[in-house]
Amino acid sequence: MYGGVAGEAGRPVPLCRFFRINCTGEVNNMIVNMSEKATEQEITHVIERIREAGYQPHVTRGVERTIVAAVGSGRRHEIEALQVAPGVDTVVAIAQPFKLVSRQVRPERSVVEINGVRIGGPEVVVIAGPCSVESREQLLDTAHAVRQAGASMLRGGAYKPRTSPYDFQGLGLEALKILSEAREQTGLPVVTEVMSTEDVDVICEHVDMLQVGARNMQNFALLRRLATVNRPILLKRGPSATVKEWLLAAEYLLSGGNQQVVLCERGIKTFETEMRNTFDLAAVALARDLSHLPVIADPSHGTGKQSLIAAVSRAAVAVGADGLIIEVHPCPERALSDGPQSLDFAGFEKVMRALREPLRPTAVPRVAALSAQS
Amino acid sequence: MYGGVAGEAGRPVPLCRFFRINCTGEVNNMIVNMSEKATEQEITHVIERIREAGYQPHVTRGVERTIVAAVGSGRRHEIEALQVAPGVDTVVAIAQPFKLVSRQVRPERSVVEINGVRIGGPEVVVIAGPCSVESREQLLDTAHAVRQAGASMLRGGAYKPRTSPYDFQGLGLEALKILSEAREQTGLPVVTEVMSTEDVDVICEHVDMLQVGARNMQNFALLRRLATVNRPILLKRGPSATVKEWLLAAEYLLSGGNQQVVLCERGIKTFETEMRNTFDLAAVALARDLSHLPVIADPSHGTGKQSLIAAVSRAAVAVGADGLIIEVHPCPERALSDGPQSLDFAGFEKVMRALREPLRPTAVPRVAALSAQS
Amino acid sequence: MYGGVAGEAGRPVPLCRFFRINCTGEVNNMIVNMSEKATEQEITHVIERIREAGYQPHVTRGVERTIVAAVGSGRRHEIEALQVAPGVDTVVAIAQPFKLVSRQVRPERSVVEINGVRIGGPEVVVIAGPCSVESREQLLDTAHAVRQAGASMLRGGAYKPRTSPYDFQGLGLEALKILSEAREQTGLPVVTEVMSTEDVDVICEHVDMLQVGARNMQNFALLRRLATVNRPILLKRGPSATVKEWLLAAEYLLSGGNQQVVLCERGIKTFETEMRNTFDLAAVALARDLSHLPVIADPSHGTGKQSLIAAVSRAAVAVGADGLIIEVHPCPERALSDGPQSLDFAGFEKVMRALREPLRPTAVPRVAALSAQS
Amino acid sequence: MYGGVAGEAGRPVPLCRFFRINCTGEVNNMIVNMSEKATEQEITHVIERIREAGYQPHVTRGVERTIVAAVGSGRRHEIEALQVAPGVDTVVAIAQPFKLVSRQVRPERSVVEINGVRIGGPEVVVIAGPCSVESREQLLDTAHAVRQAGASMLRGGAYKPRTSPYDFQGLGLEALKILSEAREQTGLPVVTEVMSTEDVDVICEHVDMLQVGARNMQNFALLRRLATVNRPILLKRGPSATVKEWLLAAEYLLSGGNQQVVLCERGIKTFETEMRNTFDLAAVALARDLSHLPVIADPSHGTGKQSLIAAVSRAAVAVGADGLIIEVHPCPERALSDGPQSLDFAGFEKVMRALREPLRPTAVPRVAALSAQS
Repeated sequence: MYGGVAGEAGRPVPLCRFFRINCTGEVNNMIVNMSEKATEQEITHVIERIREAGYQPHVTRGVERTIVAAVGSGRRHEIEALQVAPGVDTVVAIAQPFKLVSRQVRPERSVVEINGVRIGGPEVVVIAGPCSVESREQLLDTAHAVRQAGASMLRGGAYKPRTSPYDFQGLGLEALKILSEAREQTGLPVVTEVMSTEDVDVICEHVDMLQVGARNMQNFALLRRLATVNRPILLKRGPSATVKEWLLAAEYLLSGGNQQVVLCERGIKTFETEMRNTFDLAAVALARDLSHLPVIADPSHGTGKQSLIAAVSRAAVAVGADGLIIEVHPCPERALSDGPQSLDFAGFEKVMRALREPLRPTAVPRVAALSAQS
Repeated sequence: MYGGVAGEAGRPVPLCRFFRINCTGEVNNMIVNMSEKATEQEITHVIERIREAGYQPHVTRGVERTIVAAVGSGRRHEIEALQVAPGVDTVVAIAQPFKLVSRQVRPERSVVEINGVRIGGPEVVVIAGPCSVESREQLLDTAHAVRQAGASMLRGGAYKPRTSPYDFQGLGLEALKILSEAREQTGLPVVTEVMSTEDVDVICEHVDMLQVGARNMQNFALLRRLATVNRPILLKRGPSATVKEWLLAAEYLLSGGNQQVVLCERGIKTFETEMRNTFDLAAVALARDLSHLPVIADPSHGTGKQSLIAAVSRAAVAVGADGLIIEVHPCPERALSDGPQSLDFAGFEKVMRALREPLRPTAVPRVAALSAQS
Repeated sequence: MYGGVAGEAGRPVPLCRFFRINCTGEVNNMIVNMSEKATEQEITHVIERIREAGYQPHVTRGVERTIVAAVGSGRRHEIEALQVAPGVDTVVAIAQPFKLVSRQVRPERSVVEINGVRIGGPEVVVIAGPCSVESREQLLDTAHAVRQAGASMLRGGAYKPRTSPYDFQGLGLEALKILSEAREQTGLPVVTEVMSTEDVDVICEHVDMLQVGARNMQNFALLRRLATVNRPILLKRGPSATVKEWLLAAEYLLSGGNQQVVLCERGIKTFETEMRNTFDLAAVALARDLSHLPVIADPSHGTGKQSLIAAVSRAAVAVGADGLIIEVHPCPERALSDGPQSLDFAGFEKVMRALREPLRPTAVPRVAALSAQS
Repeated sequence: MYGGVAGEAGRPVPLCRFFRINCTGEVNNMIVNMSEKATEQEITHVIERIREAGYQPHVTRGVERTIVAAVGSGRRHEIEALQVAPGVDTVVAIAQPFKLVSRQVRPERSVVEINGVRIGGPEVVVIAGPCSVESREQLLDTAHAVRQAGASMLRGGAYKPRTSPYDFQGLGLEALKILSEAREQTGLPVVTEVMSTEDVDVICEHVDMLQVGARNMQNFALLRRLATVNRPILLKRGPSATVKEWLLAAEYLLSGGNQQVVLCERGIKTFETEMRNTFDLAAVALARDLSHLPVIADPSHGTGKQSLIAAVSRAAVAVGADGLIIEVHPCPERALSDGPQSLDFAGFEKVMRALREPLRPTAVPRVAALSAQS
């Protein structure tokens, strides 16, 4: 029995077979902070457990309490679980949990190429198109219009994740065919959302890049499947995902074999109600600091407000985004989804022009003041 | 012309073909309340008229009267006109976007039966077991221990949604077989999480209830598949889902044909960092106010802290929860997942005892004060 | 100059005079995690800085990186600032930053007495009354009604913090006199909110307990002033305050000389929009775990919904709250503030009755199942 | 009788006396748009009528036309009747609860002048300096350095709001004198935080602009006092304040008589833990959409991370911020507060240079693709 505090008795530890195969070899330092009243026996127990878990224990005895570091490579969860061992106050992890996406592994920036368009290079790539493909005319009109205005890629939803089962759920295969035709007519590579492992093959046949939507960022079955396809993936950040969780979702793709991943910030859920989401532009800078993967931004979902798209698009470029993905519809007030945040063609042209305007100049200190110093 | 700024080119309105088919008319659900004396023939007439008007009819037969919901997109005015049809009492529009889950459709509370265990009845149902099935011994020991302490159902993860691809991902089919054996030995019905449409069939073969995890609450492909299975579903609230979005996720299940749905509050993500989540117990009361479905609570994920489980479990029962789902492990400090929030057997027994303790008494105003009035 | 990375050059460190007087003597262990590429020189610099800051440095050299612990008593902020020293990856604090409020300092629970009413003892204390004092009759009627129903203390706002300058701001001194009269008539001790240091004296003359409102939880000038008064303080948690920040606000009061502090959870701001706030009942349990101070709960602000007050009040008592503070108004639909969350007299009586009802029983495992085991 | 459930006792309605005086009629602000040709006499007549109706009149004279707002509580119908008065164009009710800060009242942007520096004009104003004034040398060195690098104003804390009572609380009056000396030496106007009504006078003597910190955004006693001083106010957004609440806090200042208000976004609290706050840059654009007041941004608190300051500062300018306030310290690793987010002198110069770099260019659609269309 493992019963009691720490499995002191007879029975062999049961978990090891599986674990050894999959999880050995993490580099992760952990700190176990003993409580002020921890006994010598409790400290010894922790030291032994750290050793069993494959780490080297390093003991630091302070005036009031003892700290035991788990150093090296071991089974991290066994240290995390010491949180509930007797005499332990807290357990703190030190290193970041992601690896392949990290700039520590790959300091130079990655470039993802989607059928000739390079995201992560010197230029900002603009992806535009309607939330949903609603009809052939709607999509083709939009495709020509956004290319005319300067977009390099086309977006359009075929399978729509809708909060209510009674809302428009997308045209499915019909939409994929329309997207494919739009690419032929305009030369714009196409990205569309994939919601289910069952749709992966048919989507790969018709489009150039697959998007994992915000609500599916932690749909791990889907991520594992997409790790094996020969298509670049656009991975949106979940509405309540930390930057760390977002990078770990990308880690599923890279560790499964697909290196062609572009991250996309699209706003997080907060208490603010004036905008659909809180557009976390600093997270774009942070994700680029932590990871070598390209990062783009979605000002349409990020704010949910047509009137703010131009300003926040400029901000996204200024903060370092490698691209933008913007919702454009021939007639937003008739859109079957996301009308309030979609731009019409003229509005989109205005945003594209705004991206070329210089930054407002910075004031210089007054001359009188400068002379005051001398 | 789609008018306005865009589409000046004289091209025909692009969106309409599709729209006419699916979304014509107002998208608005209606409820037709039949009178207590309505005949079968009158009910059948209403059902047919709803279908003709472009809605899907959903019939709910209560003890006293029958209600027919008109769900989807149709010609609303044709439903309104049913007001004067024989056997009809009233016709009302529903303000809330969910329908079949609403107490307006079904005022009496639903009871979901899982292989003999009734959730939503007069008694609180406790579901207990480890986060993950790690081995046969671990699971069987736990199953016997939690039944001994008073649990009515067993939980155990076979497929684990893990933030990092390097964390333990579950034993899969092997775990399902172990769960099945535990049920045979203990008689406890079993619930396990389903993460992918591809696993649905094999899971249905082995367990009694399927859980949709918090991260999959809006995995609509999964919800649509589960709407068609002959198993009750435990639907966890997403970490950033509003109560309304949670009920709409349940609506996917009910509108797709599966009425056996239990809701589960498991904490939401907020700025607070001392606990894993913020356990939203008021949402349990609110969900029970808005919906007839049973609602249970998960104090383990809700707080992430062993030391708080007893207190918040009592609170969950006090606020009206129809059940609790609690993580129990023979040795939490060796658990492969969720160790810090898992109880050992003694800890679980203590929680079960706490559920039987009376509420702390309320102070009465002082006697001196009372006499001061007279 | 302190210029450059770390003040290597000539000029004396400027900050020390002030700091030595005020901040010496914190017991706090810190961990400085060096980056993988840290040089020996950078490690040495950190070790020296830790020693200068009054701590003992303890070095742990791992396979890939070095960790330096700062052990003992020193100037914590100097270690925190090492975050930006060259070669440093992260700095982590270990111990909790609060002291006098902590159960580590005082394991037994504190009882705060307010003119004969004891909060923190074996009984739950109910405080009730209107959001604002609107008139003599309104307050006196309410005072008698809530005492009749079982409340032990009276609440009523004289100075109101209102989001808009155009909303009702309270009757001020007139309200204080009315509250004083109500206490004489009913014998109920009175609590009212204080918003400004300037009002402290006049409020102390008229009432028994002073409330620091949620928006003023970190109004440190006010806290410092209240630390010196001879009245118990009711300290509400801020709408975005962590439990730690809340306890540190209480620490201002205790460290300034006022030990008579009652904490009050009143809901935090989250993305959920159906309720005014997210009532964080687990935080009540956590605060009682971390601190010896009594903790009460405010279901009125916690949910903002009349219909949920009874359920969440029961939950608050079940989770361990030492008291409740509930808004009651003779006619909520005419209230000048907080109408939607105020109970009328009958509603309040119903809540008081609900507090005496037993918890719903727990189901027992089925007999068939039990026999299956043998 | 106040009717309904309560108040059956036949007692007279208690609330009315007070209500009649302060709150009679509907509380609803109205805007009277005078025609372009309105005479002074006609404007005066409208002002008098507004006063008679119980509102406070606030006159805004624009380039083309004059607007008179009716603010407060009055008899609305009397204002509506002004529709037919001579010189009046239209009378409209305002939906948003704020009035004087609104662009509906004043469409052109306001400029706030601080001792010669204009915020809200064509140039971006950079305010820089240490979190806290720690010593004369520290502040003077910093003042010279930031002016050299291009800052137009100096910041420095004298009274510090600190979460823990054991943290450095500021040098107080001594700091104010040092700030004053720095201004004399460099000519830079100075801004410092005011935490208490009691410190207002002494701070006004020494500095040019008073900052209301994030935690005091809803310290209404402080706002009311600052509405009466002859100094511009820098009003930071609270960590959990909506944009609407922030503008209503500004409304306290304007309605109390102080028109010289600059808003400052400094990050909000969310679940994200990698950064100190979530920097809400879209809120800068939104606040400028809703209000005529200048809006600046604080990238130091907004992110809490030195390494992100340059990127998010550029983004803030791109989104439309009228200025930046940035923490600079001679030696961040020795700072008494906010070290991890403070820049050293070289880091600040780098940020100032970054503000002059052009935006990254947008990719153009591929030529091959363009020809594919023809």
